[in-house]
Amino acid sequence: MKGNDDSAQHLKIAEFLIENIRNGEYKENEKIPSEHKLCHLFQVNRHVVRQAIARITNQGWVTPVQGKGCYINRIPKPIQYVLSSQTRFSEIMDSQGVQHESRLLHWEKGLSSLAERSNLQIHEDETIYRLEILRYVDDKPISITTTVIPEIEVPNLEHHFDGFSSLYGLLEKQYHFRPIRSRSVFQGCLPVWKDAEILEMPENIPIIQMENLMNHPSGSPVEYSVSRMRSDMHKCLIVY
Amino acid sequence: MKGNDDSAQHLKIAEFLIENIRNGEYKENEKIPSEHKLCHLFQVNRHVVRQAIARITNQGWVTPVQGKGCYINRIPKPIQYVLSSQTRFSEIMDSQGVQHESRLLHWEKGLSSLAERSNLQIHEDETIYRLEILRYVDDKPISITTTVIPEIEVPNLEHHFDGFSSLYGLLEKQYHFRPIRSRSVFQGCLPVWKDAEILEMPENIPIIQMENLMNHPSGSPVEYSVSRMRSDMHKCLIVY
Repeated sequence: MKGNDDSAQHLKIAEFLIENIRNGEYKENEKIPSEHKLCHLFQVNRHVVRQAIARITNQGWVTPVQGKGCYINRIPKPIQYVLSSQTRFSEIMDSQGVQHESRLLHWEKGLSSLAERSNLQIHEDETIYRLEILRYVDDKPISITTTVIPEIEVPNLEHHFDGFSSLYGLLEKQYHFRPIRSRSVFQGCLPVWKDAEILEMPENIPIIQMENLMNHPSGSPVEYSVSRMRSDMHKCLIVY
Repeated sequence: MKGNDDSAQHLKIAEFLIENIRNGEYKENEKIPSEHKLCHLFQVNRHVVRQAIARITNQGWVTPVQGKGCYINRIPKPIQYVLSSQTRFSEIMDSQGVQHESRLLHWEKGLSSLAERSNLQIHEDETIYRLEILRYVDDKPISITTTVIPEIEVPNLEHHFDGFSSLYGLLEKQYHFRPIRSRSVFQGCLPVWKDAEILEMPENIPIIQMENLMNHPSGSPVEYSVSRMRSDMHKCLIVY
């Protein structure tokens, strides 16, 4: 590996700083070492150290304060999202003692897209409900989910939207079933404009996109959803 | 949602173009519609269209050719990585008819880190092998894995590195066991300098980091690994 040219030097310093912020060696609201100290430590000139600091500033790790130094930003502690057949957002959050909320951003009743109906195994002319749900942890938006359920499984769903707080709570209370996770596909990507706007996040933090197919306890597909989650706020755990 | 100011307009056009490249409406090696056509289609001025094109050029979707137009780049087709207790890279690739290779980049024998020994449930003074394995699909590097196995499970492991092609192949042939996946934790993040260099990838494509704990068929932890995978080359599937 290359390593001694200037361009690699500033990347190494940036990673050294990030590593120390991540592992708690440098603490939130405190300052990283001064330019002077970093020059000495890495035996480089001020220009290289400044490049490293510009990089970690852009990435959201620190905030430089004129004449004072570089303060370490609050790093979101990711929530642990356990992926199992019974996963339910509100229960995962409760078990971790995390303050959470789900808001119904938008809903519509209509026809399905090709991907939706092939996943749900329904006909082209069957009506579906499509809901957009925004999830918050500690009052910060962390994920946006579009979920589709055939109307026949949840007739008059819109009658129960008042005071919406959890889709699965609503399904259990009003329709007496709880979907069971059958398949998930996940990918990493960068946020699109809509994600960044809704999730109030910088565009350079990746998104985990998770596509889920849920079954009715009787065995047939009942819900198809696509969640886009801030990757810095989620850690997904699979137990086999 | 906002939507009519200029800054949002160019983002919308960029997403429209990306969507059409993704869904195959615009094809590899062909051109996207001309600036003129896009201006007309979105009722915006040339400046806004150019901003949109600059954006998707930076993101690696297209290559502008002076005086000719904007050609659509080859989009890597992600491999499907099935996560189950029996997952094995080479078998997944074989089943998808994909040309693949694993190379042993580096190995060492020594003591474990705190994370390694707490996952493997071994003592501080137990020796481990630590391997760095680079995986290729169609001759392109797609992931880098650091894997740790206690020496006691694989005595003289280094005697079998000649002609290395698959770790699990080696374990089965020489040590007569096959690790069973017991737990995975995944997160999305941006590549660090080393990832970008080893995986020969742009720094703005996210990485999926997956931490795996594998058991010996007899039940005790035998392998702890951390893989960093190009997110545009992997689609992970979990079946419950």
